[in-house]
Amino acid sequence: MSGRFAFQVLKRDPGTGARRGRMTTQHGEVETPAFMPVGTAGTVKAMTPQDLATLGFELILGNAYHLALRPGEDLVRRLGGLHRFMGWEGSILTDSGGFQVLSLADRCAISDDGVAFRSHLDGSLLTMTPERSLSIQDALGSDIVMAFDDCPPLPSGLERLLEAVRRTTLWARRSREAFPGNGRAQFGIIQGGDDRELRERSVEEITALGFEGYAIGGVSVGESAERSRSIVALTAPRLPEDQPRYLMGMGTPSDLVEMVALGCDLFDCVLPTRNARNGTLFTTTGCLQIKRREFADDPRPVDEGCGCPVCRGFSRAYLRHLYAAGEILSMRLNTLHNLHHYADLMRRARAAIEAGRYAEFLTNFRARAAEAEASAADGDKAHGRDVPARPGAHRGARGTRGRSGSIAGEKIE
Amino acid sequence: MSGRFAFQVLKRDPGTGARRGRMTTQHGEVETPAFMPVGTAGTVKAMTPQDLATLGFELILGNAYHLALRPGEDLVRRLGGLHRFMGWEGSILTDSGGFQVLSLADRCAISDDGVAFRSHLDGSLLTMTPERSLSIQDALGSDIVMAFDDCPPLPSGLERLLEAVRRTTLWARRSREAFPGNGRAQFGIIQGGDDRELRERSVEEITALGFEGYAIGGVSVGESAERSRSIVALTAPRLPEDQPRYLMGMGTPSDLVEMVALGCDLFDCVLPTRNARNGTLFTTTGCLQIKRREFADDPRPVDEGCGCPVCRGFSRAYLRHLYAAGEILSMRLNTLHNLHHYADLMRRARAAIEAGRYAEFLTNFRARAAEAEASAADGDKAHGRDVPARPGAHRGARGTRGRSGSIAGEKIE
Repeated sequence: MSGRFAFQVLKRDPGTGARRGRMTTQHGEVETPAFMPVGTAGTVKAMTPQDLATLGFELILGNAYHLALRPGEDLVRRLGGLHRFMGWEGSILTDSGGFQVLSLADRCAISDDGVAFRSHLDGSLLTMTPERSLSIQDALGSDIVMAFDDCPPLPSGLERLLEAVRRTTLWARRSREAFPGNGRAQFGIIQGGDDRELRERSVEEITALGFEGYAIGGVSVGESAERSRSIVALTAPRLPEDQPRYLMGMGTPSDLVEMVALGCDLFDCVLPTRNARNGTLFTTTGCLQIKRREFADDPRPVDEGCGCPVCRGFSRAYLRHLYAAGEILSMRLNTLHNLHHYADLMRRARAAIEAGRYAEFLTNFRARAAEAEASAADGDKAHGRDVPARPGAHRGARGTRGRSGSIAGEKIE
Repeated sequence: MSGRFAFQVLKRDPGTGARRGRMTTQHGEVETPAFMPVGTAGTVKAMTPQDLATLGFELILGNAYHLALRPGEDLVRRLGGLHRFMGWEGSILTDSGGFQVLSLADRCAISDDGVAFRSHLDGSLLTMTPERSLSIQDALGSDIVMAFDDCPPLPSGLERLLEAVRRTTLWARRSREAFPGNGRAQFGIIQGGDDRELRERSVEEITALGFEGYAIGGVSVGESAERSRSIVALTAPRLPEDQPRYLMGMGTPSDLVEMVALGCDLFDCVLPTRNARNGTLFTTTGCLQIKRREFADDPRPVDEGCGCPVCRGFSRAYLRHLYAAGEILSMRLNTLHNLHHYADLMRRARAAIEAGRYAEFLTNFRARAAEAEASAADGDKAHGRDVPARPGAHRGARGTRGRSGSIAGEKIE
């Protein structure tokens, strides 16, 4: 519970921009590249902290916005902080609420001071500022706190993007001033939309403030998958080499594998958890819609190559039955499987970087994805699969995944 | 997976009618007295089979009616039977559907042949007979199958009760004829409503058919808690001494402790699981409504004397937050706690019988219940407690607990 935040690049892949790193927080080490499960309201939906630790996760994401609204950060502080409140012994990164107030709140009015908005829970009028966000994150006791940013949707006009970059820098400075330090880390957020010059400007201005790490924000906010990736390709290499890079809210399996190659270290996305609750399961050969009739009698596990407790213990037929019957266990088992899929993917990515073979890993991943895509195109209905790796294939899902466990993107898209 | 069903009374309590027994099924041993968690639709809601085994349960209940409707018993048979389908390695008792068709189905017409009813899922017209029920239970592969019975609500007129006794015997004979045996057990069900003579008659007629065990049915179907207990007090001692006695659908903690003293060996009830999902938690000092505001800031575990993973890992404040936020984890943790409470109560009851001190155990339990009742009467609102042990206190809940995980009783009461 003491010591300073640290990040060490252990190995650089010779053939790509991928880095194998280790982050040290007050709550332990985090091997990177790493995916953070999203724990919006003080719980990764349907999972216990023990489940997450067993899956191998070392870092999860919480939301300042949601927790401030319910149960309130003062309550969490009195109960010993978010780690203790939710029983999670690993590390926690908290999002600042910048994204949430703009996308989730019923109405909001943004100015240089901050954002006035109505609670999505009870409609009460509230204000979020850099200082307030930092105060919330301090009360929560997170290991990595995010600067408060102005995150416009895409597409946005140049004027709005310009304003967002200016304001994000202004707020980053105020966030940094309000940051208590004491061994924790604070990450600055890069904005700039899909404009190269604005991204470059934002990188310059934010990195000049000297944070412990940097996040690429303003992606997965309505633009295409190709556009998101172009923004990352432009931004990631401009960030400091020796500090962690967090790509916010972008996270199909293909996104993760591709963006690791561009040098991103941290990821979060609601996709594995939300899709699980909707009956969409990730496999090494594409996505599987468990509700489909074809699985009613299928004795096979969800993914024959998967070693998770769900695939070892239950058939597709049983999981389909649970989904059809609206059973709670359906959401629990599906979430466990999807999070295992993500954890395993990141473990394999880290091993590939360590072996200096990430380019090969990437090539193989793309080939398998193309194969799955071809097979899905051959018999989409017959096989009950979608292909997460096909750029744009998850366009429908992209709009809803956002950064948080919220319905944010539905308003954006 | 082979061997015959057996039941052995290991010890009789000198001061009460309580017995400490051991039942052996094709899936292992069951130490009695035992409580069976209700797994209506092939899952004890929110729990994995591993959770149940870890809690110490050796026997769970499934429902022929629900599983025949969805996913269908033939599908379950093709998938290897209910044990394999749901991943449960312990023993399974299946209810015959007699209670469910009369209480759950949209409309039903009963005759000596069987019950014609409309599915509560899709309104389709179906028929349940003793032969059909046995065929379903055979397909499910349950270790203990129940005879098909005619279970009228209470109050019912003498004529209806008389008819139910006659028909239950008729159906028990047909159930017995349709029972394939092969190492499994079949329990006959006693009816007779709240009429002493009819209960005696039913006991005589059903036990004459020579089942492997006997169930007291037709309780917890609308009558008061006192009346339920009177019926059991009258019926249980008339059942064969050397065979298991299963009290159907009755199960506040106080019911279990009192009815064990009357010689009952097996219990099932939706109370611990359903109450959990509604935010009502059992403790050694009464029930706790976790949603109450007074718990918002309460750092204590649900039950300070409880050793379950929920009480060891989480505060009332956190559980209240999860409940208020509608989180899946709320239902999961609450269910785990309540089932642990029940498992622990039965463990202590068994130990008391082994020690020949069940009378003392019963006296102490009643004293603690009276104390909790007094404390609740003093400050019900202030302490957020109800008292499960007070006869009739759970009258509201009784109507809804029935035998299944269904909304049965709501129609009855």
